[in-house]
Amino acid sequence: MANDQTEGRFAYDGLDRTIHEKARLSILTSLSRHPKGLDFADLKSLCGLTDGNLSRHLQVLEEAGLVRIIKSFEQKRPHTSAAITPEGRARYLDYLAVLEQVLKDAVAENEKAARAPSTLKPA
Amino acid sequence: MANDQTEGRFAYDGLDRTIHEKARLSILTSLSRHPKGLDFADLKSLCGLTDGNLSRHLQVLEEAGLVRIIKSFEQKRPHTSAAITPEGRARYLDYLAVLEQVLKDAVAENEKAARAPSTLKPA
Repeated sequence: MANDQTEGRFAYDGLDRTIHEKARLSILTSLSRHPKGLDFADLKSLCGLTDGNLSRHLQVLEEAGLVRIIKSFEQKRPHTSAAITPEGRARYLDYLAVLEQVLKDAVAENEKAARAPSTLKPA
Repeated sequence: MANDQTEGRFAYDGLDRTIHEKARLSILTSLSRHPKGLDFADLKSLCGLTDGNLSRHLQVLEEAGLVRIIKSFEQKRPHTSAAITPEGRARYLDYLAVLEQVLKDAVAENEKAARAPSTLKPA
């Protein structure tokens, strides 16, 4: 295994599944860029999600304490927005550090592969 | 939405779910660093996966054409190894480009958040 002997070297345990899921990664990235929160409609548009998917994933994030859902009335109409919590931001940043490691490993791989080209033939 | 108006700005459609799943990302990163392939046992150790999980995810990757499973006999004992296919490498590199974009967006976010600190209080 060359220089990769360490057990679990590429396990990436820090890739928190609550955050890693694609739609939730979209939501958290959007919310982390808008610390004051975002309207449901704006969030839906930025993330390219359906109403149902956005609701479902926001609920998962709220239950995990990463996001806060704010329900209010504006001009007598119900209005929903969401904001990242301080814990959500901290865990998002931890997650990003692991993502950065994946990319570092991948870059190292590319340099290595360039030196020792694959012996595989296309299937 | 400040400068993020574009619909689907953070949808990250290129985050191919076949690759994005945590265990499969581990497997592909390991295999991309070992172009000649890896033994089942070595791969299992590097990825910190159980036999069952590794088998299951390798099968998904094989069905998607990203990985090739090689079954052979060594000293009359069955021997399994896996290697990334050229298509697998290409799609892995495409995926990494999107991952890089997520990180770029997140860095921009942090700089922005530092300028406009959150008004949220802990729940």
